[in-house]
Amino acid sequence: MENLSLKSLKWMNQEFSCASLELITAMLYLLYGDISTKAAHMLALPKVSDFFTRLIQRVAPKSYQQAAGEVFVTLKFLENFCGDQVRFLARSFAVPGNHHGQQSHGYRWPYGPVTIITPFNFPLEIPLLQLMGALYVGNKPLLKVDSKVSIVMEQMMRLLHYCGLPVEDVDFINSDGKTMNKILSRVAEKLALDLKGRIRLEDAGFDWKVLGPDVQEVDYVAWVCDQDAYACSGQKCSAQSMLFMHENWAKTSLVSKLKDLAGRRKLEDLTIGPVLTVVSISRMVLPTLSDGCITQLHLFTTEAMLEHMENLLQIQGSKLLFGGKPLKNHSIPSVYGALEPTAVYVPIEEILKDSKNYELVTKEIFGPFQIVTEYKKDQLPLEVIGNSVNGTTYAGLRGRTTGAPQNHWFGPAGDPRGAGIGTPEAIKLVWSCHREIIYDYGPVPQGWELPAST
Amino acid sequence: MENLSLKSLKWMNQEFSCASLELITAMLYLLYGDISTKAAHMLALPKVSDFFTRLIQRVAPKSYQQAAGEVFVTLKFLENFCGDQVRFLARSFAVPGNHHGQQSHGYRWPYGPVTIITPFNFPLEIPLLQLMGALYVGNKPLLKVDSKVSIVMEQMMRLLHYCGLPVEDVDFINSDGKTMNKILSRVAEKLALDLKGRIRLEDAGFDWKVLGPDVQEVDYVAWVCDQDAYACSGQKCSAQSMLFMHENWAKTSLVSKLKDLAGRRKLEDLTIGPVLTVVSISRMVLPTLSDGCITQLHLFTTEAMLEHMENLLQIQGSKLLFGGKPLKNHSIPSVYGALEPTAVYVPIEEILKDSKNYELVTKEIFGPFQIVTEYKKDQLPLEVIGNSVNGTTYAGLRGRTTGAPQNHWFGPAGDPRGAGIGTPEAIKLVWSCHREIIYDYGPVPQGWELPAST
Amino acid sequence: MENLSLKSLKWMNQEFSCASLELITAMLYLLYGDISTKAAHMLALPKVSDFFTRLIQRVAPKSYQQAAGEVFVTLKFLENFCGDQVRFLARSFAVPGNHHGQQSHGYRWPYGPVTIITPFNFPLEIPLLQLMGALYVGNKPLLKVDSKVSIVMEQMMRLLHYCGLPVEDVDFINSDGKTMNKILSRVAEKLALDLKGRIRLEDAGFDWKVLGPDVQEVDYVAWVCDQDAYACSGQKCSAQSMLFMHENWAKTSLVSKLKDLAGRRKLEDLTIGPVLTVVSISRMVLPTLSDGCITQLHLFTTEAMLEHMENLLQIQGSKLLFGGKPLKNHSIPSVYGALEPTAVYVPIEEILKDSKNYELVTKEIFGPFQIVTEYKKDQLPLEVIGNSVNGTTYAGLRGRTTGAPQNHWFGPAGDPRGAGIGTPEAIKLVWSCHREIIYDYGPVPQGWELPAST
Amino acid sequence: MENLSLKSLKWMNQEFSCASLELITAMLYLLYGDISTKAAHMLALPKVSDFFTRLIQRVAPKSYQQAAGEVFVTLKFLENFCGDQVRFLARSFAVPGNHHGQQSHGYRWPYGPVTIITPFNFPLEIPLLQLMGALYVGNKPLLKVDSKVSIVMEQMMRLLHYCGLPVEDVDFINSDGKTMNKILSRVAEKLALDLKGRIRLEDAGFDWKVLGPDVQEVDYVAWVCDQDAYACSGQKCSAQSMLFMHENWAKTSLVSKLKDLAGRRKLEDLTIGPVLTVVSISRMVLPTLSDGCITQLHLFTTEAMLEHMENLLQIQGSKLLFGGKPLKNHSIPSVYGALEPTAVYVPIEEILKDSKNYELVTKEIFGPFQIVTEYKKDQLPLEVIGNSVNGTTYAGLRGRTTGAPQNHWFGPAGDPRGAGIGTPEAIKLVWSCHREIIYDYGPVPQGWELPAST
Repeated sequence: MENLSLKSLKWMNQEFSCASLELITAMLYLLYGDISTKAAHMLALPKVSDFFTRLIQRVAPKSYQQAAGEVFVTLKFLENFCGDQVRFLARSFAVPGNHHGQQSHGYRWPYGPVTIITPFNFPLEIPLLQLMGALYVGNKPLLKVDSKVSIVMEQMMRLLHYCGLPVEDVDFINSDGKTMNKILSRVAEKLALDLKGRIRLEDAGFDWKVLGPDVQEVDYVAWVCDQDAYACSGQKCSAQSMLFMHENWAKTSLVSKLKDLAGRRKLEDLTIGPVLTVVSISRMVLPTLSDGCITQLHLFTTEAMLEHMENLLQIQGSKLLFGGKPLKNHSIPSVYGALEPTAVYVPIEEILKDSKNYELVTKEIFGPFQIVTEYKKDQLPLEVIGNSVNGTTYAGLRGRTTGAPQNHWFGPAGDPRGAGIGTPEAIKLVWSCHREIIYDYGPVPQGWELPAST
Repeated sequence: MENLSLKSLKWMNQEFSCASLELITAMLYLLYGDISTKAAHMLALPKVSDFFTRLIQRVAPKSYQQAAGEVFVTLKFLENFCGDQVRFLARSFAVPGNHHGQQSHGYRWPYGPVTIITPFNFPLEIPLLQLMGALYVGNKPLLKVDSKVSIVMEQMMRLLHYCGLPVEDVDFINSDGKTMNKILSRVAEKLALDLKGRIRLEDAGFDWKVLGPDVQEVDYVAWVCDQDAYACSGQKCSAQSMLFMHENWAKTSLVSKLKDLAGRRKLEDLTIGPVLTVVSISRMVLPTLSDGCITQLHLFTTEAMLEHMENLLQIQGSKLLFGGKPLKNHSIPSVYGALEPTAVYVPIEEILKDSKNYELVTKEIFGPFQIVTEYKKDQLPLEVIGNSVNGTTYAGLRGRTTGAPQNHWFGPAGDPRGAGIGTPEAIKLVWSCHREIIYDYGPVPQGWELPAST
Repeated sequence: MENLSLKSLKWMNQEFSCASLELITAMLYLLYGDISTKAAHMLALPKVSDFFTRLIQRVAPKSYQQAAGEVFVTLKFLENFCGDQVRFLARSFAVPGNHHGQQSHGYRWPYGPVTIITPFNFPLEIPLLQLMGALYVGNKPLLKVDSKVSIVMEQMMRLLHYCGLPVEDVDFINSDGKTMNKILSRVAEKLALDLKGRIRLEDAGFDWKVLGPDVQEVDYVAWVCDQDAYACSGQKCSAQSMLFMHENWAKTSLVSKLKDLAGRRKLEDLTIGPVLTVVSISRMVLPTLSDGCITQLHLFTTEAMLEHMENLLQIQGSKLLFGGKPLKNHSIPSVYGALEPTAVYVPIEEILKDSKNYELVTKEIFGPFQIVTEYKKDQLPLEVIGNSVNGTTYAGLRGRTTGAPQNHWFGPAGDPRGAGIGTPEAIKLVWSCHREIIYDYGPVPQGWELPAST
Repeated sequence: MENLSLKSLKWMNQEFSCASLELITAMLYLLYGDISTKAAHMLALPKVSDFFTRLIQRVAPKSYQQAAGEVFVTLKFLENFCGDQVRFLARSFAVPGNHHGQQSHGYRWPYGPVTIITPFNFPLEIPLLQLMGALYVGNKPLLKVDSKVSIVMEQMMRLLHYCGLPVEDVDFINSDGKTMNKILSRVAEKLALDLKGRIRLEDAGFDWKVLGPDVQEVDYVAWVCDQDAYACSGQKCSAQSMLFMHENWAKTSLVSKLKDLAGRRKLEDLTIGPVLTVVSISRMVLPTLSDGCITQLHLFTTEAMLEHMENLLQIQGSKLLFGGKPLKNHSIPSVYGALEPTAVYVPIEEILKDSKNYELVTKEIFGPFQIVTEYKKDQLPLEVIGNSVNGTTYAGLRGRTTGAPQNHWFGPAGDPRGAGIGTPEAIKLVWSCHREIIYDYGPVPQGWELPAST
C-alpha cells in the first residue's frame, strides 16, 4: 500500500513524467502493443482459455458456453490492440492557423489517475477491457472488481504481469466483500457531492425488444428471445426485460416456442442459475486515487422476485405465461435468487394507464424475468429508431439485445456521462479528453510596428 | 412562457419528432446552413457590425477594437457553417459486423433539451457560438445570458429570427438581474446534487505565460504581454494572470516596456475600464428545461483588489512593478472595480515556499492585475507542454494566452466535463453524444438449426 | 502567354514558394475562404444568378430551371467553403513514432501545376467546382473549358477576380473551337504516352436504372425516369441510358406514363433541344503546364441517332416505344442532333445473346435516347449494389441517376484514375496526394554507443 | 494455370460474388483478421523467424541483422491487423442528404483483380505487406516476385495457407527468371499504352540528406549516414544517394568518421555485398489478371559503377573521399556489381553549373555509392520541407532516409499514381477506391404533385 500512496501522490502533484506526451510515446504505446500481443497469444492457448472459463463459472453462475464467450470476447479485444494499434489510438489532428507559422493541434489527452469499479456479471471482460482501454491512452488506473468475483481478474493481473505489464502501472484493490461494501456504502453519499460529475457510467438497463409487423423465421426469433432474456440467468446489462410483439406475432406459435425453450434450461449446466446482488453503478472516472465509489445494492432474492411477479399479476388482464416457480434441488444460499425462467404478460393499455402501473412494469429485475406485451398497428410510432435514445440499438431480423460488447456502447445515452467499451472510438471518448495545443512559432511579420492599445 | 413549458413537456416525453434522425435531416441541417449563411451576410454589413460593436461597448466595458473583434469572430463562426457544413457535422461512420447482414453505425446524437448559461465578458460571441453549436446538432436550447449584458444577445435573436430561425427552436430567458441572481443562487445548491454531473463547464482560469531562455523580439513580446494581461481590463477567461520570465528576459528592457505600454491605456477609449462581477460557472448542459443554474459571485471591487495587492506586497522580496492605484475621474459605480493596469513582482522561491503563499499568489483576480516572477535554468522542467494539463496551450514566439476562440478549447481540462467552443470538433464533443446502431437484417444463415441453450 | 510560361517554368523548377506549407497557410487558406464567401454572396443576388442562368442557356441548350439548378449547385458549393472551411480541408493527422522524439505526420499535399479540361454540358458548375477544389488545396491550375460554352466561365473568372482571386493564380485558356480542337487532336496521341497515367477522369457513362419487384408510386417513378432520361436533352453525364423494369412494373401504366411525360417536352422552353458534340475525356491532372489534352469527338447528329435506332430495331422482338422522329420547325445546325425523346424496347434475352447485340445496345448515345427492357425474377442477382462497381449509386424509391453533383462521385469507378467532384472528400482525394513527414528530433538516447555495422 | 484463368474470367465478368459488400463482410474481414493473428504468432516463433531471415540472406545479400529487421517489420505488420482490425479498415462514413429519407454513404471499394510485381531487395516484406493490404480490402491479387528471390515469398505462401488463407484467394506466379524477363520485356511496351495509368508505383529513388548549420552529435550522425548509404549495399529504395553538408559540418571530423565506418564493412558478414540488377518499376495495379508487367533493367556491374565514378571525377574540383575499388576475394558472378563503400565529393557550384553535370551527379546508382557535397548559408532555402515534394520526408537529428517502412510512403510523390505501404492509410488509398452510395428510400413527400418538365 505504500507504493500505491507514493504513486498517487506523484500524480496528484502532476510530477509524474509519464503524463508527458513524448515519454508516453516511448514508454507506453509500443509496450502496450506488445503486452496485448503476448496476452492475446496466451489467452488463445486452450489450457489458458479453459482455465479462465472455469474460473468464471466458479464465481459467476453461467453456462460453460457463456463463460467461454466472455473469454473469447476478451481475447478478440486484446488481438485488436496488437502491434502498433495502441500507438494508432493516439492519432491527433492539426489544421493550419490564422497566419504564417501557426498550427492548431488537437490531441486526446489522458486524465491521469482514474478509478475503475466493475460489477459481478462479467468478471473478466468488463474489467479487462476498461482497464486496458484506460492504460492504452496513458492513464494510471486503480481497479476494484466486485469482491465476489475478483479472483478472476486477480489471476488475469498475474498473466498481464507475465506478459510485461509493469507492476506499478495498475493499482488493484482486493478485499473481503463485506468490509469493502461497508466502506463503500459509507463513502458513497459524500462522493456524490465531491465528484460533481467527474464520472462516467455504464448502467444496467431495462432493455426492450420490439417485434414489428412482418412475421418470419419464428424458430430463429424465438431462440434469440430465449437467449436474450435468460442466458446468464438474465444477468447481462443488456438482457431483454420486455418484449413488444406486434399482433401478427401474437397469432403465431412464438410464445409457446418461448415456453419450450425456457423449459430446456437447467441448473446442472448453469443454463439457469442463481441471481446475485447488483452493484448498480459499475464504473467511474475519479480525478484522484481515492478508493471510494458509489454503490447501490439491489437484492433480488427469490422472495423479492416472486413478490414482484404477484404485484404484476394484480394488473387487470395480466397472466403468467410460464415459469414463476422457485428452482428446486439446489444449494443456492438464500441471499441470492433462484427462479425458473419467467414471463408475465401485461396488456399494453394497462402498462400505459397510469404512472403506478408504468413504474411497476418497467422496474428492472436483474434476473431470468421478462414482461411480454402485444401492440396493434398505430400503437407504436413508425420511426422507432429516430424516436428512441438508447446508447446502443440493434435493428433487423438478427438483432439481439445482448449483442454486446464488440459492438457495444453502454448507456445511459443522452447523458454527458454515458460510457462505451472496447472499440477504439469508445476508448478514446471515455478514457481521454480533448486538448488543443497551438504552435505559433512565428516569425513576427516583417516590418511589424507597435499598434495602439485595445 | 406557456409555449416554453409545452415544448419542454414534449421533449421530456420524448415525443418531439425532431429527435428523429430522419426528420432532423430534412428540417434542421439545410435550414441551419441557410440561417448561418444569411446571418453571416447580415453581420458582414458595416452598419450591422458597427451596431453590435457599439452595443457590446455599452454593456461590457472594452475598447471599440476589442468589441469589433468579438463581432468579427462571431461572423467567422457563422461563415464556417454555411451551405452544407451543418449537414457535414452529422457525419457518421460504420464498420462491417461479425456476420453477413450486420453493420455497426456510430452517430453523434443530440441530448435533446439543454440549457446554456453565459457570462458577461463576451455578450455576443460566447452565447451565439454555443447556441448555434447546440442547435446545429439537433438540441433544443434554453439560453440565459448574464442579465447585465443580455440586451446584445436579445438583439441577435431578432436578427436570427429575421434570417429564418424558427421562434420555437430557442427559449431565451431574460429578466432583471437582481431578481434572477436571487433565484439562481437559491436553486444552486439543489442543482449541484440533482445534476450529478450532467453538465459541461467553461471556467475562467488563472492563466500563466512562460518566457523561455531565448530572448528575441522584445518589443513584440512586450506588446503581446500587455494585450494578454490588460485588454478588456483583464476580463477575458484566458487573460494572462502570471508571467514567468527566464532570467535572460529579466536582464532586458521587457518590464520597463510593459510599464510604458500599460501607461498608454486610458478610460476614454476603454482600453482600461471597470471590473465587473464574475459568474464563475458559465455554461451547462441540463437534461430538462429547468431554468436553474449554478452561480458563484466573485466581487472584484477596487478595495478588494487593493487589499489583495497589499497582501502580496507582504511577501518577502515582492514589489510593485507599476500601477496599483485606483482609476481617477470616473463615474464607475463602487460595486465595480476601477484599477490601473497593475503588476506585482514576487520571487519564485517565495511563491513555492508554502501553500499559504502559493494560494495567495495564484488567486484569480478577474481584472487588470498580474503577477510577474523570474526563474533560473533548472527551476522549470524542460518539457513544459508534456507536463501541463491545460485545455488549450499556445507555444511559440507568437503564442498569446488570449488567442481564443477560433482555436480555443476552454478548461477545465483533464476533467470529463471540460468543454470547447466554436470548432466542428468542439461542437460535436460538447453538444452531442455517441450512439451506436447495429443493423442486423440477416438473412438467417441457410440451414440454421436450433442450438442448445447457453 | 509569356506570363503563363514564366509561371510554369517556376513550378517546374520547384521554386514557386507557394508550395511551402507555411506560406500556403497564410496566403491561401484564409484568402480562399474569403473569396468563396464573397462569390457566394454575389451569386446569391437575383440579378447575378439570373445573368448566369441565361448565359448558360445561350450556349448549352437546357431549360431555365435546369440552368438555374446549375447556378444553385455552384452557389451551394461556394457556401460550403466559406470562412475557415478551406483551412479545415488541410487537416492533417499524426501518430507517435517508434521512440522518444519521433512523430509521423500525414498531409494532403498539392500536386503543383495541374490542368483542368471541362466539357460543354455544365459550363459553370463543372469548371468552377473543379477549379476551386484545385485552388483550395494549393494547386496552380490551367483551365480549358469547351470552347462552345467557355464564355460562361470567362464571366465567372471576372466575378472571382472581383471577389479577390489573384489574377496570377489561374491560367484560363480561351480560343476559337476549331483551332483548339485541331491542336488538341494532334497532341492527343503523344500525351497518352507521355502522361502514363498522371491523369484523373470523369467520364460520361452509360447509366442504367433498375426497378425492383415492389411496385409503388408509379406517377412519381415515371416522372423521375422522364427527368433522368430527357432533362438537358439527355446530355448529363449521369443521364439514364437504360431502364430495367421488373415484370411487375411492366404490367402497370409506367411505359404509357413515360410516353405522356416525354410528349410534354418542347423546343420552345428547351425541355428538349439540340444534341451537341461530346468531348469524352473531360478533366485531367497534368504534371506540367502543357496546354495539351486528350479529346475524342463523338458526333451525335440526327442521322447518326436515327441510324442507331434502326440498328436496334433489327434485333428480334425489339420495338419503338415512343419518339424516334426528328424535331421539326427548328434552326438547329445540322452538325448537331435534333431528336424527339425516344425509347426503344429490346428483350433482355436478346441483349445478352451475344457480344454484338450487347455492344450495340449498351452504346452510349449522349442524347434524349434510352433503351427499355424487362426482366423476370431470377434474371437479376439479389444483391445489385454489392455486385456493381459504379462510382456513384443511388438506391431507393427516390433514387435518381441525375442526383449529382452535391452527392456525386463520377466514374470510372474501380479505376485508380477515377475522380469525384465538390465534396471535401472528393477535393482531397482528387486534387492532393498523401505526403508523410516524420519529425525525429531526438534527443539521441542517453549513453548511446556506436553499434556494429549491419 | 487452368484454375487461374477460370478465376480471372469470373472476375472479368463480375460474377465473383466476393465483390459483394455483404459477403466480403462475412467471408473476408474476420477471416483475414484470423489469418493475420495466426501468421503473426508463427512468425514470432524464433525458429520460424530465423528460417526466414536465413532464407532472405541466401538470395538477397544483406547482413543477418538487416534480414532479421525485414522479418521483424513483416511480423509487426501482421500484428497490426489482428482481430477486428481488418474489419475496421472497411470503415465507411455517411452524411444526411438533401431531404427526408436520403443519406449519402462513402465507401472504400476494392478494385477486384489486381497484379502485384515486387523487386528483389526486400523479398519478404514488400510482397507480403502489399499482398495482404490488397487482400484485406477485398481484392483478388496476382503476385509476381522477382524470380531471383521468389523462393522467400513462396515459402511464406505456404505458411499463410497453413494459417487459413484459402488457396484460391491469391495467384502466385513463379518461373525461371530468364524466361520471365523475356516475356515481360516483350509485353512492356504494349502495356504502357493499354494501362493508360491504371497503375500505382513505388519507385526506387535518388534520396538526399541535408545536414543543417547546427553541428551536434557527430558520432551519431556519422553512424546514421553510414547505415543509410551502405546497409544492404545501398540497395534500399530509400538509401542515401547524396549528402549535403552545411559548411559547419565540413569543418568537423564527419567525413573522416564516415570513412572509418565504411571501412568496418566486410563481405564475410554481408555488411557489404553484391549489387543486383534492378527492376525499376516495382508494383502495379492491373485491371485484369494479365500476367504482363513493365520492367526496365538497369545493370550495375562493377565496371559500370567504376565508369560512373570516373565520369564524376572528371568534374572540376571533385575527388574520391573513400572506397572506389572493386571488392576482393569473392565469388560474386560478374553480372553483378562488387564495389567497396564509395563516396565522391563534387562541389555544389559544379553540380548546378549545367544540366549535363546535374544529370550525371543525380543519376541513381542502386549500390554502395554516394555523392557528398558542401553548401554555404544562402545556398539552400530556409524552408526545405515546404519546398520539397518527396513522398516521405524525415526531419530532425534522428532522421534517417531508411526509416521505412513502418512510417513509409514511397514516391513518386506529387504523382497521382504514387503509392504507400503498410499503414492503414496506405492500404486504403492504394488498394481501394472511393464509392458513393446514396440511399434515398423516401417516402415521396405527402401531397406530391407532378411538376412541369425541365
